[in-house]
Amino acid sequence: MSVEEISQARSTVPFSRETLESVLKRRFFFAPSFELYGGVSGLYDYGPPGCAFQANIVDAWRKHFILEEDMLEVDCTMLTPHEVLKTSGHVDKFSDWMCRDLKTGEIFRADHLVEEVLESRLKGNQEARGLVKDANANAQDDADKKKRKKKVKEIKAVKLDDEVVKEFEEVLAKIDGYSGQELGELMVKYSIGNPVSGEALEAPKAFNLMFETAIGPSGQIKGYLRPETAQGQFLNFNKLLEFNNHKAPFASASIGKSFRNEISPRSGLLRVREFLMAEIEHFVDPLKKTHPRFEEVKDVKLKFLPREVQQSGSTIPVESTIGDAVATKMVDNETLGYFIARIYMFLTTIGVDPTKLRFRQHMANEMAHYAADCWDAELKTSYGWIECVGCADRSAYDLTVHANRTKEKLVVRQKLEEPVQVTKWEIELTKKLFGPKFRKDAPKVESFLLSLTQEELESKAKDLKDAGKIVFSIDGIDGQIELDSKFLSIEQITRTEHVREFVPNVIEPSFGIGRIIYSIFEHSFWSRPEDTARSVLSFPPSVAPTKVLLVPLSNHADLTATTQEVSKVFRKEKIPFKVDDSGVSIGKRYARNDELGTPFGVTIDFDSAKDGTVTLRERDSTKQVRGSVEDVVKAIREITYNGVSWEEGTKSLEPFASQTD
Amino acid sequence: MSVEEISQARSTVPFSRETLESVLKRRFFFAPSFELYGGVSGLYDYGPPGCAFQANIVDAWRKHFILEEDMLEVDCTMLTPHEVLKTSGHVDKFSDWMCRDLKTGEIFRADHLVEEVLESRLKGNQEARGLVKDANANAQDDADKKKRKKKVKEIKAVKLDDEVVKEFEEVLAKIDGYSGQELGELMVKYSIGNPVSGEALEAPKAFNLMFETAIGPSGQIKGYLRPETAQGQFLNFNKLLEFNNHKAPFASASIGKSFRNEISPRSGLLRVREFLMAEIEHFVDPLKKTHPRFEEVKDVKLKFLPREVQQSGSTIPVESTIGDAVATKMVDNETLGYFIARIYMFLTTIGVDPTKLRFRQHMANEMAHYAADCWDAELKTSYGWIECVGCADRSAYDLTVHANRTKEKLVVRQKLEEPVQVTKWEIELTKKLFGPKFRKDAPKVESFLLSLTQEELESKAKDLKDAGKIVFSIDGIDGQIELDSKFLSIEQITRTEHVREFVPNVIEPSFGIGRIIYSIFEHSFWSRPEDTARSVLSFPPSVAPTKVLLVPLSNHADLTATTQEVSKVFRKEKIPFKVDDSGVSIGKRYARNDELGTPFGVTIDFDSAKDGTVTLRERDSTKQVRGSVEDVVKAIREITYNGVSWEEGTKSLEPFASQTD
Repeated sequence: MSVEEISQARSTVPFSRETLESVLKRRFFFAPSFELYGGVSGLYDYGPPGCAFQANIVDAWRKHFILEEDMLEVDCTMLTPHEVLKTSGHVDKFSDWMCRDLKTGEIFRADHLVEEVLESRLKGNQEARGLVKDANANAQDDADKKKRKKKVKEIKAVKLDDEVVKEFEEVLAKIDGYSGQELGELMVKYSIGNPVSGEALEAPKAFNLMFETAIGPSGQIKGYLRPETAQGQFLNFNKLLEFNNHKAPFASASIGKSFRNEISPRSGLLRVREFLMAEIEHFVDPLKKTHPRFEEVKDVKLKFLPREVQQSGSTIPVESTIGDAVATKMVDNETLGYFIARIYMFLTTIGVDPTKLRFRQHMANEMAHYAADCWDAELKTSYGWIECVGCADRSAYDLTVHANRTKEKLVVRQKLEEPVQVTKWEIELTKKLFGPKFRKDAPKVESFLLSLTQEELESKAKDLKDAGKIVFSIDGIDGQIELDSKFLSIEQITRTEHVREFVPNVIEPSFGIGRIIYSIFEHSFWSRPEDTARSVLSFPPSVAPTKVLLVPLSNHADLTATTQEVSKVFRKEKIPFKVDDSGVSIGKRYARNDELGTPFGVTIDFDSAKDGTVTLRERDSTKQVRGSVEDVVKAIREITYNGVSWEEGTKSLEPFASQTD
Repeated sequence: MSVEEISQARSTVPFSRETLESVLKRRFFFAPSFELYGGVSGLYDYGPPGCAFQANIVDAWRKHFILEEDMLEVDCTMLTPHEVLKTSGHVDKFSDWMCRDLKTGEIFRADHLVEEVLESRLKGNQEARGLVKDANANAQDDADKKKRKKKVKEIKAVKLDDEVVKEFEEVLAKIDGYSGQELGELMVKYSIGNPVSGEALEAPKAFNLMFETAIGPSGQIKGYLRPETAQGQFLNFNKLLEFNNHKAPFASASIGKSFRNEISPRSGLLRVREFLMAEIEHFVDPLKKTHPRFEEVKDVKLKFLPREVQQSGSTIPVESTIGDAVATKMVDNETLGYFIARIYMFLTTIGVDPTKLRFRQHMANEMAHYAADCWDAELKTSYGWIECVGCADRSAYDLTVHANRTKEKLVVRQKLEEPVQVTKWEIELTKKLFGPKFRKDAPKVESFLLSLTQEELESKAKDLKDAGKIVFSIDGIDGQIELDSKFLSIEQITRTEHVREFVPNVIEPSFGIGRIIYSIFEHSFWSRPEDTARSVLSFPPSVAPTKVLLVPLSNHADLTATTQEVSKVFRKEKIPFKVDDSGVSIGKRYARNDELGTPFGVTIDFDSAKDGTVTLRERDSTKQVRGSVEDVVKAIREITYNGVSWEEGTKSLEPFASQTD
């Protein structure tokens, strides 16, 4: 089979998620955790092939990003004290809206519920209008079926007014942006209750998604399991900058587990409570977001779904090079663009189908208020388009909030080539008067005054001049505070500065490894048209869990000895392999192996024992060639680790006619 | 310098923990987590060199154990539901005893407190008797100082009666085995209170060391962060056995974080609340604990501290080959012995000093009741001998408790070569009568009867025959239960069995990666006698965080171009390297680098630009040789990845006289 034939074969048999899942579980790629005890939803264990696949993906990530770009890797704790996540905003904002059915005790995630109910009503309307035959049978894809199996059990053919349809569509387009109150109002307005009983639900309540725990013997320290690896990197900023000899820009990176206490996790590996993340924090000068290696990637062509296209209601992506996307300002800056291109290169190298990959820009209401721009790499799966990598310009937000909270400077200092004259408003406090006047509140008042912005200082200076005093109030201190010029002076002062000090901006590419892994499972999975019961996982050799299956043709002693010799060669060459000396037919052993995604099979027969040659089989095409063990190992090594094609890698080997597949 | 000279130099300057810690923190090997927020004790982050070192140790572990022995690696969740850890015994027994000072709120770990107070009294006695001059100044090692800094502030010279000394010594020898009540009694008997105020403390209370959390939106599922990775492996036993084509013995393995909510963690990286573990569960036939590869390791010589030696009060180890240790039954069986030897080989390969490594057998009262034998690999550090790897034969305990709890069989089935006649007591229940008689308790009664042992069945059969009924009681059911032969029959039945079914025993080597890392830091650290301010971390090249420092002699443009070319070669060869083109002297750059443990320096000078040769420097000896970039890279590769010695690896390179070190 040629590459074209394989590609055609792969699209011949329709994809079935059920078949894929059954293979993945049967071959123990993964399994629900604690299944013996009935399982806990949203928790999964990786078995040997899943674990090896994950390790290879992580290894590829480390090479592609950390080594290639000389990033500073850190490994920070998952246990995180309350105060850190209070400052970062997670304590207040890292939550979903849930509503409870007071009769049954069932709990629903409000936005998902509204979305699914309105979608099902729109489908029912289509059926009622005769636009589809049977909305239940005709559901667009597996994703819809799966969803309805859980919440909306049945679509009813009910015609809706045109205005209602329009309203529903508008709500759905904005579904990610509603507050809890707004969701509650929508549920009342559209009579959305428990989809099974129709019973009204409690109004949405915020549910924080962090797992809480107590650190220390008497629970003195309230803590959480981290929801992301980023905070550990921000908190180590000064140490990292010093490690980097005080030079910026630089990037840190971290690979580790994070946690999210999902309200009702479904969707298998795509929505889990404990997951592996790989995150980069690239610290860059806010005035200079160019990237020295942008030139290398500028011609990479990508599919973009920018904000305007989404607002127009379209999902047809814009194709463009990343160079043009940055030049036209569709993507905010070069550094962000550089990482978007590098993300694309990484994903397609490890087995993501490029036709099922798009970059979607966050809508204004999806994005954190401080973010300058944000793009998600979305992968198409049977569950729909899934966010697998986020790539955000988080501006100076994180370092600023931690610096403000801890009073530690988190800045880069750069020697200026030419000193500059800087004119600034500066405030000076007569500190000895603050203690007697404010007592325990003195530090609060001082810190308030010292953190005034230039604009605020200017206005206060004017007050002080005009009224002889300034008046202000501070949260937590009763009444208004008045201070005159005995307490402070505010003046405009010009100084010569030799050093520029700035809070770097952060570009954050953030990878959900488990979601990427699941998407690659789907993108790699197909069944042989000649025998649809035989499934194949076409992983790229570089990330396949095992590279080679050694298959002795029989259990004859001669072959056993040869198999051990060949095994030694593979072990010495550090090529991960397995031996299958089970009694079943060669064809069956290869079929089993194709399900595990092993790219190469090496058959040992009686000629091998005599002349040292073996047969090499390629998983997807089932092509076979023959040569000495050394030449076969060399071909495997070149194809697996040096990115050489099968044709190129095996050109010195003899074609071999097979009766085994 | 020759190897002998290096070794002599390494022992010339006394080891100082303070100097080591200052280097480790300055070079960001690790740092207290959340230091910006004041830190949380027992939590540490690894910076770039620590993180790379850890990754290399893990990689070495994976190759040495998982790949070499074809183990089945799994990655299980850290979040674990209550029920699983209730069954495993952790909910009831994974605790330390703590006592509180009700006035100050201070919390002490009871066994540590008793130990330290008695030790300090023994020292005070020695001073009072004139056996030591000043017990405070003369404290044996850093560990003592550190401890006293925390709890016992000052040793008082008070003479003790001979019998009291003997009593104290006996208590200290058994300190790991006391119950909470016993510790409380010791505290009363010896008037042990808060060491600072002398104030009495609350009686010891059990404090469970697991971090608790709630899984799901309304806290429905009580859970913990796992205290070990083992449970995930046990729970997946059936899937792993199936993956292994139902063949035993086999081993699973897991690398991941575990958690332990220490009462008052000190001792830096040695006692932390979140730590990386690597654990193996080797499932073996209880009747056949031989190991096919034992022959390969039988001559490995080790230092053992068996139970009897410890009981005699000695700490002088027994030197023996592992072959003899197993033959004399000092070590229980071959499989346990095989792993002990493999642990030794692993540790010494990654940089543990073999003279500071011993295997200590658990005392009977230290060991879990079910364990057949248990040995700890202990490493000597400035904190004393530290348990870094446990190697236990856990018998069939874990699989049995989970099987009993979940009613799922966790067994290996082996086809017998010859069928055997097996005579067993078998019970048969007339189930239809159980429901009407016991109602909701019926399943409990049935399950009680079905889990009776052979001995119990025999005795019950006798009762049934003699008295016409059996009488028993069950926890949770009031009163006695009487059943006659209408309800059940118990008979001895002989059957022909073709399959043998057994619960495998588990040999569990369990590695605390962080403790091993810290011990290697100590074992690798020394200062150059000619300039003690210059410290070196002599990591083996294979695990060193970075392998090569590229040092251009100056910032001249010619050298910059050459440096870039040489960098390309190293990048292509995938050898981790760093460039130091800072302006400081070569000597300073090398000194900085020695602190990071980088084994090789490559200097690029003006000759390099002309003839393509570079200088290669070895970290420990500071020897230098010169050759082409290709030959130097080859030497580095051979020494780093193929275990070749410096002499052997560089024999084709020219010696080079250096003025730079």
